Amino acid sequence: MGVQDAIAEISTFLGQRLTRSKSDLDLHGRSESYFPLTPPDAVAYPETTQEVAQILRACAKAGCPVIGWGTGTSLEGQAQAFQGGISVDFSRMNRVLEIRQQDMDVTVQPGVTRQSLNEELRATGLFFPVDPGANASLGGMASTRASGTTAVRYGTMRENVLGLEVVTAAGEIIRTGTRARKSSSGYDLTSLFVGAEGTLGLITELTLRLHGQPEAISSAVCGFDTMGGAVQAVIDTIQMGVPMARIELMDEASVAAVNAYSGMTLPERPHLLLEFHGSDAGVAEQAETFGLIAAEHGGSGFDWATRAEDRNALWTMRHNAYHAILASRPGTRAVVTDNCVPISRLAEAIEGTQADLEEAGLPGPILGHVGDGNFHAILMFDENDADAVARAKTVSDKMVTRALALGGTATGEHGIGVGKLNYMAREHGGAWQMMGAVKAALDPQNIMNPGKLVPPRN
Amino acid sequence: MGVQDAIAEISTFLGQRLTRSKSDLDLHGRSESYFPLTPPDAVAYPETTQEVAQILRACAKAGCPVIGWGTGTSLEGQAQAFQGGISVDFSRMNRVLEIRQQDMDVTVQPGVTRQSLNEELRATGLFFPVDPGANASLGGMASTRASGTTAVRYGTMRENVLGLEVVTAAGEIIRTGTRARKSSSGYDLTSLFVGAEGTLGLITELTLRLHGQPEAISSAVCGFDTMGGAVQAVIDTIQMGVPMARIELMDEASVAAVNAYSGMTLPERPHLLLEFHGSDAGVAEQAETFGLIAAEHGGSGFDWATRAEDRNALWTMRHNAYHAILASRPGTRAVVTDNCVPISRLAEAIEGTQADLEEAGLPGPILGHVGDGNFHAILMFDENDADAVARAKTVSDKMVTRALALGGTATGEHGIGVGKLNYMAREHGGAWQMMGAVKAALDPQNIMNPGKLVPPRN
Ligand SMILES: Cc1cc2nc3c(=O)[nH]c(=O)nc-3n(C[C@H](O)[C@H](O)[C@H](O)COP(=O)(O)OP(=O)(O)OC[C@H]3O[C@@H](n4cnc5c(N)ncnc54)[C@H](O)[C@@H]3O)c2cc1C
Ligand SMILES: Cc1cc2nc3c(=O)[nH]c(=O)nc-3n(C[C@H](O)[C@H](O)[C@H](O)COP(=O)(O)OP(=O)(O)OC[C@H]3O[C@@H](n4cnc5c(N)ncnc54)[C@H](O)[C@@H]3O)c2cc1C
Repeated sequence: MGVQDAIAEISTFLGQRLTRSKSDLDLHGRSESYFPLTPPDAVAYPETTQEVAQILRACAKAGCPVIGWGTGTSLEGQAQAFQGGISVDFSRMNRVLEIRQQDMDVTVQPGVTRQSLNEELRATGLFFPVDPGANASLGGMASTRASGTTAVRYGTMRENVLGLEVVTAAGEIIRTGTRARKSSSGYDLTSLFVGAEGTLGLITELTLRLHGQPEAISSAVCGFDTMGGAVQAVIDTIQMGVPMARIELMDEASVAAVNAYSGMTLPERPHLLLEFHGSDAGVAEQAETFGLIAAEHGGSGFDWATRAEDRNALWTMRHNAYHAILASRPGTRAVVTDNCVPISRLAEAIEGTQADLEEAGLPGPILGHVGDGNFHAILMFDENDADAVARAKTVSDKMVTRALALGGTATGEHGIGVGKLNYMAREHGGAWQMMGAVKAALDPQNIMNPGKLVPPRN
Repeated sequence: MGVQDAIAEISTFLGQRLTRSKSDLDLHGRSESYFPLTPPDAVAYPETTQEVAQILRACAKAGCPVIGWGTGTSLEGQAQAFQGGISVDFSRMNRVLEIRQQDMDVTVQPGVTRQSLNEELRATGLFFPVDPGANASLGGMASTRASGTTAVRYGTMRENVLGLEVVTAAGEIIRTGTRARKSSSGYDLTSLFVGAEGTLGLITELTLRLHGQPEAISSAVCGFDTMGGAVQAVIDTIQMGVPMARIELMDEASVAAVNAYSGMTLPERPHLLLEFHGSDAGVAEQAETFGLIAAEHGGSGFDWATRAEDRNALWTMRHNAYHAILASRPGTRAVVTDNCVPISRLAEAIEGTQADLEEAGLPGPILGHVGDGNFHAILMFDENDADAVARAKTVSDKMVTRALALGGTATGEHGIGVGKLNYMAREHGGAWQMMGAVKAALDPQNIMNPGKLVPPRN
């Protein structure tokens, strides 16, 4: 059988770094999300690009599925081995290879996490902005086209990856992009691999854009009487062109959860969490503009943090919000919705969601990166309650239908995996078939993370 | 024969809007560049997406080449019909379909030009920043991944296209992207079509990001004693993180040419042309920082323009620089190089080019979008002088070799067409074959702008 042949061959050069221990298989068979345990047949821990190429060649020869694994924090089952095969864990390819301060770029191996990268950068005056809630790997973040609280100012992985080294489905090593800031040289293969969820090849090196640490930073929280008021304040702030570095929404239930989880004492009402980057004068000007807008929409208790510790506490709390919400109802599982709509339609999208939740009688704390029009409802249910599961699915479905009708997308940042596969035809129509054609061209045997993202192969 | 069948069928629904007049064929058989006249077999002027789809279906059936035509200003022969076929001219699809001020986006047909779009936007307080020297079409600009003087601040077409409507090689109409500011939903097909030079499908609609007109704008010119000083001032300015809206270099020969062509009176030495966008205070702060940097590198005569007329005169002069340079030696033709390198290597790249030009004894005024590390040498030669042609080719080649060695690209913005095809293998290695595989998957008959960008089909 194919998989066994691949395992035998890979063992010859990886030795102990190809494991079949139950704990390792189980670890790579689950995700942070609601999908069942689906262990791979083996887990490989390559240390070099050459080893990755050898693994891919062995798998190509044997027709064995290959699933990349960064830190396994993706939320749509992307890294799970639903069809078995070899999980390629990049945790041993975790070196920052070269920091080029003058060009404000860096080359890293895919297993470097966002936090460890920023630790290495601390002394340089530069930082890498993309910050999903989890301390994810840069290879995984590129592969899901991740973003986070700062995308409103600094962009997502799409805007911050300059180039890649990739091992193809045939085990060939290629490079996409250069270190030039722009190029018109041929198809944008970098953008094709960013967001491809490991279905086209494995990323073995990334060159990333860095940004200068701003001269001044201040963070703030601001409570609102109503969700509508908070959302309208966001819309106005973005439309005024205030260059927010961060502008995050948490509804009442989210605030209650983070208070309990992180020992905060925010008043239990809707809040915006904000950050301003710029010169001293610029930051003050932005904060003042925001303050005026917020006051118009029932914002109050506009509270400041310029000390680094206070800011860190604030954003750590925000990054832990998902775990805080799950912890607020022990034993429940969750579908995390991830709609993103044009900013002018954000109020409609959120109000509609609240109505859906009410109708379904489902707890669904809402929070998100609202400066981009992106928000999540964490739809919680007891997985043994078939009816609740069905209601969660219905709400998620309605939300997607609404987001698409408003000109938006089913997923602003979490990606497709298997969890959002059934929205693809609706969002993309014929373009989804085109994705399938690209996949078939670059992975004719369908060994790269099969069953994810593209239409099922006939 | 295939082409004749396609022409016969297309005539049935386009009538007079499929033309074979010699003047029309000749017009669509030449470019602004040094390529010989190669008229298509016919020119189609569709008015709707449906008509484009019908054209593509007729061409697919007949195996007839199809070449998109925006305004024909591309510089690498991209829009020329080297293998005959039907030129699809988008000049009648030139409507701005919907401006959405609140979301700062706009949907346009592909024949809208950048200037006409900005005229329509004038009253909205918004603008579209990408500005190649020519008044190109947005469909053509997307297809070459164009940029211009403002890319250093606002990005290129890559960053400013949110979504597309495309007619595929089979005549199917698809949509890529949404109006959401970010999405992780599947492969980034938008980025695949941006820069594809019409080799994968025809763009029939674009949704573009707009930007708020800044509160304050000021432009400036600044002369330098040496090219080295000017380049170093650029490097320092970018590395300091000054958010320049424009920072353009012209060498002595370029300045002489624009003086003559545009009736300017700049001192004949290297110059930087600058623009600052922001609040009143921000603009003043930026200009002051730049002034200090410039002074350190022999910059002087730092001259201001805050009046709109003066600014327009300055940038019109810059946009006409290519024609001004050609006009400085009537009867000559030119190879326009287009290297782009990491900013820290810009001085090396330009000095090396100057040495190459000296050695070759070739006139080659240098100018460019240096804030991105992008510059052009306009290599001029008498096309009847075979030796000069050969020397121009040699210089261009050496420049590419150097740019790649410095971590850059052969083309920052002009694209590949046929003119830069022979650099593709060198720049991309195996990734070029991958581009060929994508092309073969999406255009199996090779009817979409054949002979451009990808490796020759076996
Ligand atoms: C608490 C929490 C908060 C989160 N918040 C956010 C958020 O704010 N924004 C956001 O975008 N996401 C968020 N996520 C989701 C998750 O963190 C992101 O999807 C992240 O990008 C996944 O990275 P990873 O390293 O864990 O990838 P994994 O889960 O290991 O893998 C993700 C996908 O990439 C593939 N892959 C991994 N490495 C490679 C490689 N080197 N080459 C090719 N393919 C590879 C995998 O096969 C899989 O398909 C959150 C998740 C959690 C648990
Ligand atoms: C004086 C001068 C200055 C210039 N300065 C710059 C500059 O600063 N920056 C820069 O980037 N470029 C510059 N250029 C090059 C040129 O303007 C750009 O390449 C521009 O993007 C071409 O647009 P166009 O509408 O003329 O496209 P065309 O030349 O008509 O076509 C370009 C390519 O796109 C394809 N195409 C056109 N329309 C479509 C469509 N709707 N769907 C699919 N494919 C299509 C064509 O087949 C062709 O392959 C300059 C050119 C000149 C003459």
